[in-house]
Amino acid sequence: MDVKAILADKRALVEEALKSYMLKAEGPLADHIAAMRYSLFAGGKRVRPILCLAVAEALGANPKPLLPLCCALECIHTYSLIHDDLPAMDNDDLRRGIPTNHKKFGEAAAILAGDGLLSYAFELLTLPELNATLPPADQVRIVHLVAKAIGPLGMVGGQALDLDAEGKAIPFEALRRIHRCKTGALITAAVQTGAIGGQADAQQFAALTGFGEHLGLAFQIVDDLLNVEGTTEQLGKAAGSDAARQKAAYPAFFGVEKTRAMAMEAVDAALAALGNFDQRADFLRELARYIYTRTT
Amino acid sequence: MDVKAILADKRALVEEALKSYMLKAEGPLADHIAAMRYSLFAGGKRVRPILCLAVAEALGANPKPLLPLCCALECIHTYSLIHDDLPAMDNDDLRRGIPTNHKKFGEAAAILAGDGLLSYAFELLTLPELNATLPPADQVRIVHLVAKAIGPLGMVGGQALDLDAEGKAIPFEALRRIHRCKTGALITAAVQTGAIGGQADAQQFAALTGFGEHLGLAFQIVDDLLNVEGTTEQLGKAAGSDAARQKAAYPAFFGVEKTRAMAMEAVDAALAALGNFDQRADFLRELARYIYTRTT
Repeated sequence: MDVKAILADKRALVEEALKSYMLKAEGPLADHIAAMRYSLFAGGKRVRPILCLAVAEALGANPKPLLPLCCALECIHTYSLIHDDLPAMDNDDLRRGIPTNHKKFGEAAAILAGDGLLSYAFELLTLPELNATLPPADQVRIVHLVAKAIGPLGMVGGQALDLDAEGKAIPFEALRRIHRCKTGALITAAVQTGAIGGQADAQQFAALTGFGEHLGLAFQIVDDLLNVEGTTEQLGKAAGSDAARQKAAYPAFFGVEKTRAMAMEAVDAALAALGNFDQRADFLRELARYIYTRTT
Repeated sequence: MDVKAILADKRALVEEALKSYMLKAEGPLADHIAAMRYSLFAGGKRVRPILCLAVAEALGANPKPLLPLCCALECIHTYSLIHDDLPAMDNDDLRRGIPTNHKKFGEAAAILAGDGLLSYAFELLTLPELNATLPPADQVRIVHLVAKAIGPLGMVGGQALDLDAEGKAIPFEALRRIHRCKTGALITAAVQTGAIGGQADAQQFAALTGFGEHLGLAFQIVDDLLNVEGTTEQLGKAAGSDAARQKAAYPAFFGVEKTRAMAMEAVDAALAALGNFDQRADFLRELARYIYTRTT
């Protein structure tokens, strides 16, 4: 299986959908919409939408009608990056190799671009055309689980914990909580959205939730490794910025070698969660392995 | 009808619901949740939740099961105030007579408190207990209309336009657009949420939407008047701040007397929209009149 080629295909599908579902920068609100589009189309990897599509496919579903949900997940991810980069937060100047949203449009416009993307995501999660594929009860379930994943006890809470922890010696359990909330929750929600979109039964839903949790952990550990080992050019943002900011991260707790082994363990646990799925889940399996290869 | 007494009763109902549905400030995320609660329980008038309840009652429905929706509307309103007050936006130090969220908790925490409240609102809009009263299709409809009302072409867009307009001479039509987006959209959405919650038919829904639009306009014109005429003590925020900031407002276009007449016209139009409703809509009617009395 050529995982890179399939990834590229799926990414193209997501890009096209984002272009078609995102508001156009025209009319009196052109500037505001342009600020949203700037970050949304800044070349993200589209991990969360691709996961959602791949999970639905692993269940034998046609994933294309789920594209509005995929776009919503990417809008949410983008909003979180814009707000995290703000001067009052991580104060980053570069993201994906280009100036961060507030560097380009100013702080007020960047806050509003984030707010706009977050609100728009819920418009996309309930787009009337979804009724043709998804029973309303499933749409409600998706809105609820996504809102929970990104809210005070999820992604936003994770960022709050992360900021509190800056410059402090925190125990490993606190780092795990930050990761689980800040990165893990939305990745798991993307998997769960694909699971509901693919009509998973209760057992499949539970297994896929486990897959998402382990994958989210692997993803975050690899991110920590890349932050230590990558160059600014590779990352599109300042390398070593976690250490410079005295942010706790896996390598600081365990060293690079042990951290790499822990990433592999998390990938293995993700694969194990897919034990009862047939070959239609093979791309999901490759995707999990591919995340690990980013470390080397 | 003692509109003040009924308002006080309904407000008490909303306060109780907010206390029961809002997260408690405990556990690792206690600080983040405390920041959300600080602004949520800072003594708001609860206009949007009360409107939602009153509209459902005007349709003969028991409004109590709709309280999670009311709380969601208030979370959204509160988030918008927290973000509008930020240094990068209106840079206000006082709100409802107490320090603004960022003055109390710092800028990063305030941004996240807003983000948390916005996300949490969508959790409340899809709370499983709603299934006992509201068909899932109605819940989806509510999420969609609320998201649209507060998104890039609604409330967030309105704030973007408002910031752009600061210090500029804008035509009246631009001011109308700012008001319609920034204040009108969420008020109309609150009315529409009550309409769907009260099982309005298509005709009733359209009439109530008109009511909400006119009421939102009246509300905003009165706000403009109070900003000119009220004292800082009455307002709980700096009086005359619109003029100081060179924000366009009705009195600057039309003078105080004409503006007051326009507020009355908007109230009359709101009342006319209720023409086909019976006496169960009397509290809604009184509420519309009551908004006008705030000007005098």
